[in-house]
Amino acid sequence: MATMKAAVAKSFGAPLVIEDVPVPVPGAGEVLVKIEATGVCHTDIHAIDGDWPVKPIMPLIPGHEGVGYVAALGAGVTDLKEGDAVGIPWLHDACGRCEYCQTGWETLCEAQHNSGYGVHGTYAEYALGSAAYVGHLPPNPDFAALAPILCAGVTTYKGLKETEAKPGEWVVISGIGGLGHVAVQYAKAMGLHVAAIDVADDKLALARELGADVTVNAATEDGVAKIMSATGGGAHGVLVTAVSPAAFSQAIACTRRRGTVALVGLPPGEFPTPIFDVVLKRITVRGSIVGTRRDLAEALSFAAEGKVRTKVTVKPLAAVNEALDQLRHGQVDGRIVLRP
Amino acid sequence: MATMKAAVAKSFGAPLVIEDVPVPVPGAGEVLVKIEATGVCHTDIHAIDGDWPVKPIMPLIPGHEGVGYVAALGAGVTDLKEGDAVGIPWLHDACGRCEYCQTGWETLCEAQHNSGYGVHGTYAEYALGSAAYVGHLPPNPDFAALAPILCAGVTTYKGLKETEAKPGEWVVISGIGGLGHVAVQYAKAMGLHVAAIDVADDKLALARELGADVTVNAATEDGVAKIMSATGGGAHGVLVTAVSPAAFSQAIACTRRRGTVALVGLPPGEFPTPIFDVVLKRITVRGSIVGTRRDLAEALSFAAEGKVRTKVTVKPLAAVNEALDQLRHGQVDGRIVLRP
Amino acid sequence: MATMKAAVAKSFGAPLVIEDVPVPVPGAGEVLVKIEATGVCHTDIHAIDGDWPVKPIMPLIPGHEGVGYVAALGAGVTDLKEGDAVGIPWLHDACGRCEYCQTGWETLCEAQHNSGYGVHGTYAEYALGSAAYVGHLPPNPDFAALAPILCAGVTTYKGLKETEAKPGEWVVISGIGGLGHVAVQYAKAMGLHVAAIDVADDKLALARELGADVTVNAATEDGVAKIMSATGGGAHGVLVTAVSPAAFSQAIACTRRRGTVALVGLPPGEFPTPIFDVVLKRITVRGSIVGTRRDLAEALSFAAEGKVRTKVTVKPLAAVNEALDQLRHGQVDGRIVLRP
Amino acid sequence: MATMKAAVAKSFGAPLVIEDVPVPVPGAGEVLVKIEATGVCHTDIHAIDGDWPVKPIMPLIPGHEGVGYVAALGAGVTDLKEGDAVGIPWLHDACGRCEYCQTGWETLCEAQHNSGYGVHGTYAEYALGSAAYVGHLPPNPDFAALAPILCAGVTTYKGLKETEAKPGEWVVISGIGGLGHVAVQYAKAMGLHVAAIDVADDKLALARELGADVTVNAATEDGVAKIMSATGGGAHGVLVTAVSPAAFSQAIACTRRRGTVALVGLPPGEFPTPIFDVVLKRITVRGSIVGTRRDLAEALSFAAEGKVRTKVTVKPLAAVNEALDQLRHGQVDGRIVLRP
Repeated sequence: MATMKAAVAKSFGAPLVIEDVPVPVPGAGEVLVKIEATGVCHTDIHAIDGDWPVKPIMPLIPGHEGVGYVAALGAGVTDLKEGDAVGIPWLHDACGRCEYCQTGWETLCEAQHNSGYGVHGTYAEYALGSAAYVGHLPPNPDFAALAPILCAGVTTYKGLKETEAKPGEWVVISGIGGLGHVAVQYAKAMGLHVAAIDVADDKLALARELGADVTVNAATEDGVAKIMSATGGGAHGVLVTAVSPAAFSQAIACTRRRGTVALVGLPPGEFPTPIFDVVLKRITVRGSIVGTRRDLAEALSFAAEGKVRTKVTVKPLAAVNEALDQLRHGQVDGRIVLRP
Repeated sequence: MATMKAAVAKSFGAPLVIEDVPVPVPGAGEVLVKIEATGVCHTDIHAIDGDWPVKPIMPLIPGHEGVGYVAALGAGVTDLKEGDAVGIPWLHDACGRCEYCQTGWETLCEAQHNSGYGVHGTYAEYALGSAAYVGHLPPNPDFAALAPILCAGVTTYKGLKETEAKPGEWVVISGIGGLGHVAVQYAKAMGLHVAAIDVADDKLALARELGADVTVNAATEDGVAKIMSATGGGAHGVLVTAVSPAAFSQAIACTRRRGTVALVGLPPGEFPTPIFDVVLKRITVRGSIVGTRRDLAEALSFAAEGKVRTKVTVKPLAAVNEALDQLRHGQVDGRIVLRP
Repeated sequence: MATMKAAVAKSFGAPLVIEDVPVPVPGAGEVLVKIEATGVCHTDIHAIDGDWPVKPIMPLIPGHEGVGYVAALGAGVTDLKEGDAVGIPWLHDACGRCEYCQTGWETLCEAQHNSGYGVHGTYAEYALGSAAYVGHLPPNPDFAALAPILCAGVTTYKGLKETEAKPGEWVVISGIGGLGHVAVQYAKAMGLHVAAIDVADDKLALARELGADVTVNAATEDGVAKIMSATGGGAHGVLVTAVSPAAFSQAIACTRRRGTVALVGLPPGEFPTPIFDVVLKRITVRGSIVGTRRDLAEALSFAAEGKVRTKVTVKPLAAVNEALDQLRHGQVDGRIVLRP
Repeated sequence: MATMKAAVAKSFGAPLVIEDVPVPVPGAGEVLVKIEATGVCHTDIHAIDGDWPVKPIMPLIPGHEGVGYVAALGAGVTDLKEGDAVGIPWLHDACGRCEYCQTGWETLCEAQHNSGYGVHGTYAEYALGSAAYVGHLPPNPDFAALAPILCAGVTTYKGLKETEAKPGEWVVISGIGGLGHVAVQYAKAMGLHVAAIDVADDKLALARELGADVTVNAATEDGVAKIMSATGGGAHGVLVTAVSPAAFSQAIACTRRRGTVALVGLPPGEFPTPIFDVVLKRITVRGSIVGTRRDLAEALSFAAEGKVRTKVTVKPLAAVNEALDQLRHGQVDGRIVLRP
């Protein structure tokens, strides 16, 4: 039986172990993907730590931003062939028959499986994808740059769509990390004006370089006042990529009347919603969870055209624990991508 | 100078005083309305108590559910004539030129005036309305029954629209008081299935009588479980008419994936929003504030057709303090309406 | 090999022949349905006559409004069991992977198969359905009454949704035949006001009985004037169930500014669109083709609740040619349903 | 009494006459604008020729793309002051109270007045605008370049919005004349992919220069095939700026399933709509008429940022008849602008 290197979580909270495991065999409707690059996402830490209400399988190969070439086809797969460049996203597969799957909202399917959580993921030399759910990459892709599109990209792109901000209007991107620096680019490609908020000047410099029209250092400036002034009354949309009580309050405060705050990311806890403002200003607060296959296809298309380019640091798979530690401590600029 | 009886708030928190005051004279674009009936709303208590961030004028004639006949026209009024039956809503007038007024969202105009708050209201024999903003009643109206449509009606109707629930889908109406008992009827007239929640069995009996498909006593039943089961996975829309932390938590919990919770009512304070659920289920939480002139016209049209009928207790204007006390203590069934 | 009676088209334009054919065997993902009732639709005539650009298979068993009990399951079918009551619609199956299938618009899938057209249909004792695409009926259904929901019902329900008319607004239903008499009921259940147009007084009487607020005999009355007056400036939505140049012109003429004309039905030919009116009044003209699985589930749900009840004439399968002739000559009241 | 030069239509179809007429005096709510530049639009020809069903006033000063400085204020105007740079659009004023005005659709107001049609326009040294309806220009504007935004700009911008095409999707711009060359720029600024169709190679070269991704010479190429291929199945939106039967047929044919064809421009006559395709592909055909005040503000904002720049040929007002002749004969590149 063929084996491969994989980074495996053996128990909640423990460091991953690089070990040899069997190369998986694609079942009906599945493809085996030889992973060329796989991004490191905050969700992987939640999986490894097991701190969400529903627990992942354990032991677990994490990872849901894996890109590479199709290496083998399971029974009945006709849309893909060996050598196609694809990506394995968080949404590994869904039932295809529930009301959400029937209406283009498979991200809400209650029977969905998630890569690197309920099924093994992409921190490995090979991983299984569902043929109907993998993302299709352009030929000869820059794998390292595209890997984060599979989650950070589609999540922020969908979140921006969910704000319902229209070309020419303003969005605030709160948090210019792995998600936010991609969000700035999607927003500009969508014809939006962008105000970026962070507490680190180097991240704000990156935001400006990527096209942000206004930047705000929330640690040193009155961000709400600055944004209210720059936008002429508040932003039409606000994307909160790093949900904390402070970021959430600020998001509400700089939302235009009739505007929408979209929340991505899944921290535990509850955040205080100021009812008076939300009602009087008819503010909409909306959760947004990754994106559908269609959202992913669109997100990849923007990237394939060069309109969105992720900033990545490439490390070998063996450095996975170091990468996770950097992410835990907020020391990542853009996104870390692992190469098996 | 002609005088009239009016119920006047002289200082924050004090009982109203019935006194003789001059009948107001309509300015350009205004009409004088002889009040036949005027509803008593929770907002009046906030005005009298002065417990919102922005304070009302003082002394103040409260009231923003006033209906009656046009008694005199100000300069330039051509759309109305003496004897027309009209109603004076919360939205006394707006600027007509800002981005909100230009786009059919005059309820968000930052220069709006509010009846019985920033300008005198309808707890009086006569009151001024803005010709372009008064509601148009059908001929020979049942004034007492229509008065609450001016605020309770339009507020709940708009709130239901804001849930974006479609005919055949489910809405939960949380709180079957002055607002909720009207909301049940609008929801049924809009082709929706209705689950009503309250803690009082008589209010739930009223809800059933008005067409609710399911009723839940939140004090004695597991409301979330009952609603999840009856709706097959949660309600598409939830209208929270009485926003409290408990009602808000329950509202989120019985919302279907991709559903919307609309909040009406303006309590002070903040309510804890469970980020994980809101994101994973892609829930939308939206404030909704009264309704526009168009919403009001639609709300009145449903009532004029007999599809919505408010349950009112009629009292003389002189009983205003008693009425307010009943409302403060949750002792009102449906809505109290005062007759000057 | 088991055989069954079926009505078979042997060549374009010829009468159907009742003959014994093998009972089909369900493949993977398919179910065999014992047909209890099957509606007769205009589309069947187009199939039999072969007058559309793309031709059906020939010989052909027509029929796409077939309802009955699941009699056998193909491999891999887990959502259904023998004895379940289901219906086979026009949309026999679709690819599940194209942009339309991914976004809840499988009715636009370019790889779809259609029952009684590209694959055999339901004019038979048994027929094959795709497990993921059959409609789910309530227990102990009134099969004859539900059969037409599978096409006439879902088509008009979807067409009404596509007009974007909201509860309280007006729709015109043009043509009160097999489709129109169902449309009137869906419109009422959706909270709409209905004006019905036809040229036959008995059909208009039926429309009134089913809830139409206004009826117009286009042969004897000035329909446009009557509708403009009744609706206060035109209907928000117009559903044209019988597209002819005259009906289309009339539909445009009685559309409110900013309203929508939805066309269902597939006559050959082109209809003259008056550009000036369409532009100045910002009218939307939109084609609508049957409905998705979700639309069908919703349409069936309205019927299961008793809000929509089709008017049917039941005949034995052997009378199929007589039924088709009646339909060709406009002699059908409501819908004809065949019982194998 | 002060006089001014104006180009006056004295009778239908006759050349305009430059003559001295009194400078108009602004009434209540009006402003007098000293015209710095005024664009020449096809609609002016319809006004001069009187070939629309409703006739303009006669004699008439045409023109509805007039920009300049506020020179005097009528009674009650508080939002503007002398010296402000403004523009007078086709929508001179509307009633402010009908259902369309109340919902942000004042372009559909049945009591609207149109500049250079029902009231005098901007082919003059001075013209009257309605304070609440004039467009607000940035300080120190390039008047000649901005003039066409007042009609060509807002009309195409609104038409693009009405296609409902989203960033990343494809639009076809049919006709690269005075409207189309502006439409290409708005579409790009809105994040859309653009295919431009015309029959003149120089206009297609201009389209490419302005950002069109694909260009098609409909006289020499199979435009539909080229667009279907470039867009992967048809354009999500099609904007027809020059409605002719041929352009309309082509527009339908290159529309993606579920896509929208927006028609701007008001030629007389009817165009044949292929029902079969429109229904089977669920195509939407929608008229779009200029734009609201909000649309105009947005359209001006894109121009003020330099994202849209009209190509204009400036002529003196005295050359108005020559300009109109050029336009009649299709000899205008971009837009002609007159300077009084």
